[in-house]
Amino acid sequence: MREPVVVPDAGAVRPEGAGGLPFAVDDPVLARAAWSRVAEPADAVAGALVAHLGAAEALEWVVDAVRDPARALCGSAVEPLGSTVAADRLMEAVARWAPRLDRLDPRRELRVLERFGGTLLVPGDPRWPSGLAALGVEEPFALWVRGEPDLAALAERSVALVGARASSAYGDHVATDLAAGVADRGFTVVSGGAYGIDAAAHRGAVAGGAATVAVLAGGVDRFYPPGNQDLLRRLADGAGAVVSEVPPGSAPFKQRFLARNRIIAAMSCATVVVEAAWRSGALSTARHAARLLRPLGAVPGPVTAGTSTGCHVLLRDGSAVCVTDAAEVAELAGPYGADEPPERDAHEVPAPGRAARAVSRRGVPAEVEALGDRARQVWDALPARASAGLDALARTAGLAPGELLAGLGALELHGLAAQEAGRWRRVRRDAGRASRGTSGG
Amino acid sequence: MREPVVVPDAGAVRPEGAGGLPFAVDDPVLARAAWSRVAEPADAVAGALVAHLGAAEALEWVVDAVRDPARALCGSAVEPLGSTVAADRLMEAVARWAPRLDRLDPRRELRVLERFGGTLLVPGDPRWPSGLAALGVEEPFALWVRGEPDLAALAERSVALVGARASSAYGDHVATDLAAGVADRGFTVVSGGAYGIDAAAHRGAVAGGAATVAVLAGGVDRFYPPGNQDLLRRLADGAGAVVSEVPPGSAPFKQRFLARNRIIAAMSCATVVVEAAWRSGALSTARHAARLLRPLGAVPGPVTAGTSTGCHVLLRDGSAVCVTDAAEVAELAGPYGADEPPERDAHEVPAPGRAARAVSRRGVPAEVEALGDRARQVWDALPARASAGLDALARTAGLAPGELLAGLGALELHGLAAQEAGRWRRVRRDAGRASRGTSGG
Repeated sequence: MREPVVVPDAGAVRPEGAGGLPFAVDDPVLARAAWSRVAEPADAVAGALVAHLGAAEALEWVVDAVRDPARALCGSAVEPLGSTVAADRLMEAVARWAPRLDRLDPRRELRVLERFGGTLLVPGDPRWPSGLAALGVEEPFALWVRGEPDLAALAERSVALVGARASSAYGDHVATDLAAGVADRGFTVVSGGAYGIDAAAHRGAVAGGAATVAVLAGGVDRFYPPGNQDLLRRLADGAGAVVSEVPPGSAPFKQRFLARNRIIAAMSCATVVVEAAWRSGALSTARHAARLLRPLGAVPGPVTAGTSTGCHVLLRDGSAVCVTDAAEVAELAGPYGADEPPERDAHEVPAPGRAARAVSRRGVPAEVEALGDRARQVWDALPARASAGLDALARTAGLAPGELLAGLGALELHGLAAQEAGRWRRVRRDAGRASRGTSGG
Repeated sequence: MREPVVVPDAGAVRPEGAGGLPFAVDDPVLARAAWSRVAEPADAVAGALVAHLGAAEALEWVVDAVRDPARALCGSAVEPLGSTVAADRLMEAVARWAPRLDRLDPRRELRVLERFGGTLLVPGDPRWPSGLAALGVEEPFALWVRGEPDLAALAERSVALVGARASSAYGDHVATDLAAGVADRGFTVVSGGAYGIDAAAHRGAVAGGAATVAVLAGGVDRFYPPGNQDLLRRLADGAGAVVSEVPPGSAPFKQRFLARNRIIAAMSCATVVVEAAWRSGALSTARHAARLLRPLGAVPGPVTAGTSTGCHVLLRDGSAVCVTDAAEVAELAGPYGADEPPERDAHEVPAPGRAARAVSRRGVPAEVEALGDRARQVWDALPARASAGLDALARTAGLAPGELLAGLGALELHGLAAQEAGRWRRVRRDAGRASRGTSGG
């Protein structure tokens, strides 16, 4: 089940650091591991530089730029970058990266990952989730993975279920239900491993028997937050994967949480905000999904509590589709037309009880309703506790004589109306049953 | 406050019935009162006939048609109708209306209305709500009104709040709140006078100090349903109006309920479904509003109960806008741009408490948050229970030295960080306060 860690070819790693680095950088995988330490997540300047020069050469260029900024900038290597990244932004970035260069040791971090049975993925690996490419220069340099390394397979049919850490019992319940329901339909549930909705979603997915992926803001060597350690360990041990774009040893800083949300949105086929108040971080995931033109759903909730205000804002401004059950989430996330929800009748639980109650309150037997509008109109016109002649009935019902007789005929055939001496009356076949039925309710 | 009943000019009413009717029909108001008895609500054939011939002549034509169908159809009077109403449909309708012709007595019904201090309104009366004209041939022939007769004034700034009779405590609460809130903003609340959401909406409007209009399916001589008698009497006695398109003595048949919904939608500036299950009759009001291109809103609710499924379907298919408070309802129903809701911050109740809790859980003082992202980044990099040098801090934070110093400077200025022998540490000014604060929570 575990894939071996991607360890760079020993021959490709020079034993001594070149260009001021304590390690060789001509291995592109190792260089990407290094970049995931050097640059903060979603550093677009780093992304542009790596996209332009390749990870290894970009790193060597940074080392040179620290030593001799003027020469580095005039070099032909980065000149073409000038059109997208201004020189001063580039040198600002170099100043930001420089403090992390001298202690850089991606091989040590890979060894830590290996100890946890983990895998380093980089773009180009067939197991890399293809959706991440949509992030462009903000695509992660690498993903440090514990658990199932084939994120491409997991993400192929996936949905991100996200929401507030300060969730309500309602939100937790809905998150668990939706996750179990989509898991049952073969979807991987992606979330952030946080308290509240995230944890409920992961748990629901595990219960539903499908894999679930937690994308963490800190390194995968430490399961954060502490209260979710057992849950995250379960994911890493076979129930899915725990993933981060920052190497082991990285702390879960605030900006890393926000940047992490783009990965959740980009690797999933759709994102659903299950419960989120107005300022919830989950809305940043929603914004990423919208920006990436991925399907976005929001689950409504009570308007009295404020706990779903964020969801309601997304519904109100039209950025999100209203989703209320797993079938609707599956329809949102699945290929077009492949996961259409069943007809409303088939999966609506409370209707029959309510309908029956509403009908019995008005005293109309279900048999009459079943005969259609005309019969219903005649039934309404028949007096409740007396009988009436045809003229009076036609007047009361507002029906032509032929229509009236047709309606009376249908009622009589079903034993719901009876005629005596030219006068018609109701027959309540279910009166006994109805009163017995309601006495218990 | 009470307007006199519109009593037809005595001279216009011939003492003996003409053309087989027990009363004269050359008074258009009396003829409309008669039509509201002869034809069931929303009888489009009757509407087309009255629109074509006028109410009085249309009634006389029907009397003739009953006597001699062939001659009536060949008459030049209805010939132009042939393009919209087929002859067989017209004669079907005549057969439907005929049983009600011989006992027709609109003057008696007007006397009943007068006894209740009511008013008969017909199209053309300045007090007739102009929105009803959008119903075309389904516009009511007349409205039998108890209470405030100037429905035009009431409807000018109005919103229909409708929903299930089998409402939940949540739905009742929201309906009352929304109604009171829009009443406070000068909106008339229109509803159906039924149990559940309707009643809660009327009550909320009364509490909010604005008029509220109940449109009944039966005659206004009888307040239906029985449990809402006191409420409806209150409306008729000054808190608004109780209205029906069928004359006193008419029973509230099922089809009249459904037809009545078109009046609620057409006389209101907007319709909001507060709570409705999948098969709720309130959805028929929503469909009328949508068909009339009136703004339509739906209040979301918990997805776990099924009681808001109808609202969610309207949100999901895009027919309704998500509304969650009175400000949003007012924006929906008011003239464009006149009732924009305040900025979210201003009226969101739960945010501060929640935000404070979320922050204190992560242990970040509000003062740090207030200093912005850079300071926050530096704070995150400072060790929780030790001190660190500039190099380590730059590495941890991923910041250039200048940015780092700026952040440290801001923190130091606000007493949140301190330096000793070149090493920086956090200063928790609010540690005591925080622990006291949370011990009570």
